[in-house]
Amino acid sequence: MPELRFDPTTGDWVVFAPLRQLRPRTLEKDQGQSSPHHLSVEQHCPFCPGNEAMTPREIDAIRNSSNAWQVRVIPNKFPALQIEEDDRRVEVSELFHKMGGCGAHEVVVESPDHTTVLAAQPIDQIERVLRMLQRRYLDLLRDRRFQSIILFKNHGERAGTSLRHSHWQIIATPVVPRMLRLRYAEAAQFFDRTGNCLHQVMLNEELAAQKRIVSCNRNFVAFLPFASHLPFETWIMPSQFQSSFGQLPGELFRPLAEIMKSVLTKLFVGLENPDFNLTIDTASRGDEEQSSFCWHIRILPRLSTAAGFELGSGMSINTVLPEDAAKFLRAGTDE
Amino acid sequence: MPELRFDPTTGDWVVFAPLRQLRPRTLEKDQGQSSPHHLSVEQHCPFCPGNEAMTPREIDAIRNSSNAWQVRVIPNKFPALQIEEDDRRVEVSELFHKMGGCGAHEVVVESPDHTTVLAAQPIDQIERVLRMLQRRYLDLLRDRRFQSIILFKNHGERAGTSLRHSHWQIIATPVVPRMLRLRYAEAAQFFDRTGNCLHQVMLNEELAAQKRIVSCNRNFVAFLPFASHLPFETWIMPSQFQSSFGQLPGELFRPLAEIMKSVLTKLFVGLENPDFNLTIDTASRGDEEQSSFCWHIRILPRLSTAAGFELGSGMSINTVLPEDAAKFLRAGTDE
Repeated sequence: MPELRFDPTTGDWVVFAPLRQLRPRTLEKDQGQSSPHHLSVEQHCPFCPGNEAMTPREIDAIRNSSNAWQVRVIPNKFPALQIEEDDRRVEVSELFHKMGGCGAHEVVVESPDHTTVLAAQPIDQIERVLRMLQRRYLDLLRDRRFQSIILFKNHGERAGTSLRHSHWQIIATPVVPRMLRLRYAEAAQFFDRTGNCLHQVMLNEELAAQKRIVSCNRNFVAFLPFASHLPFETWIMPSQFQSSFGQLPGELFRPLAEIMKSVLTKLFVGLENPDFNLTIDTASRGDEEQSSFCWHIRILPRLSTAAGFELGSGMSINTVLPEDAAKFLRAGTDE
Repeated sequence: MPELRFDPTTGDWVVFAPLRQLRPRTLEKDQGQSSPHHLSVEQHCPFCPGNEAMTPREIDAIRNSSNAWQVRVIPNKFPALQIEEDDRRVEVSELFHKMGGCGAHEVVVESPDHTTVLAAQPIDQIERVLRMLQRRYLDLLRDRRFQSIILFKNHGERAGTSLRHSHWQIIATPVVPRMLRLRYAEAAQFFDRTGNCLHQVMLNEELAAQKRIVSCNRNFVAFLPFASHLPFETWIMPSQFQSSFGQLPGELFRPLAEIMKSVLTKLFVGLENPDFNLTIDTASRGDEEQSSFCWHIRILPRLSTAAGFELGSGMSINTVLPEDAAKFLRAGTDE
């Protein structure tokens, strides 16, 4: 049974999920295989059409006119957190506190296609995925025990993917992660002092500087932040303030899908299909009505390895200036 | 030229060191080679005796009676931070602040031997390395611009090693890293409330529970913390309070070397030479005289990959309970 334990030296809750040791890793098999064997992989892929019985019961899906699913949501078979667990704190001793691994862990299968990466999906399909992510986000928030909803995607082995068939994951946590509290506090302090949203001011300063912008349309801007922690780290931010991904209005899914495709394609081409993580950073429960934190997407290519300095200090060493990386990405696709 | 940039969304300073892109990676070459070729690797290893001319000028060394070096300290040839840089802040705009990459980046070559891992070194040699680390720590603190001294070791490719010949690194930073401020603040709050050192109370609770202890002697305890962030994460802590590694008295280097050898051997045997990072967490400048934070060593095996959930939330998912891991390590070496 998963549980959370509190680290009194940092203020973090750590998830303990021994079950996740058992999860299959088809990635290695998959990558080593040549095309004649391809069918056998798809036969064993729990995310491929026809193998629906291999997954736990479907939570939600978007279907086409022939009733075939286009996007499918299922519980993670090896969950980090589970809806049945208790969220009450237990004091084992003065310093050792724990609680049940209460939460939710879902998988959003991005398309029926086993091999297509997100960048190569049609805009319509990316839009469907985003709409489903918001639908699940809003539904999970209805459970009052869940404080934060973490939406993310892992692409490639260095990014921690265990199954190749392209998918997203959603984890609902029964606590607000300390790092999110901290990011929120920075934004709140800035708002209290200036009356402005930190992220929107940052976006405006990036727009004024221009040199770290990689893509933009009427509603979104993609840029490599001035103080990026990782080489080619790319953010996508709405140009009008919204605190939460749950507040993204229906008409903005299309432009968001468009800019995501543009940015992911630039990264795919420029860095030759890099491993990456993608997270949607959004306000936690109760903060959606405030004006300090603007939701955004962070795309984090996994080109380097965090080593002893990063783990010992919490600081990052970035070997690529974001303005150089942005120039490279812009040049790669002639924009 | 390295520089630091401030991330207003988190409060972190990020190190930008484009030069480090150029550093050689002999690890791959090395691991792929069979013994007949071994000599050629040593001929090209800048840390091997006879190749001293390949490194920048020696900073310090411990020599034997024949004047051959046993431990050797040199500047990192591809430094993250440099002593010549300016530590003044520059405001590029309201939110974008930067400063020169002022600091120091040194390499401590652990022994003349190209292939021996730290666990396999004689206790005497481990003791020499630890004495040298403290000597460099104290010397670097004499430069009043340096706020924190990060001492660490990377072992293996997944831990970010680029050169196989076993070594430590020391980075002096011109700012206190936010994560260290935060850990310090947790300890200070606990001290203010209880009058006790958080880490010593934690150690006592671990000693009372017993089940996560892997090794101990009269002066040090090695344990896997109740809320370990990583599988097999192991801490070594002095049983008498000292705030800073710089305060470790001369007679404790021997027992520290002994427990380090014991713990590293258990990990080496039990996990078959795992990749790991090791950091010495110690009080920053000005905090050495306080009684809240006790220095300690963290050994962080790199058995898992941080993925989107970890990057998006800052929370860790640990698939191995520390009591199970401790039992496994104890069993492996019959103690």
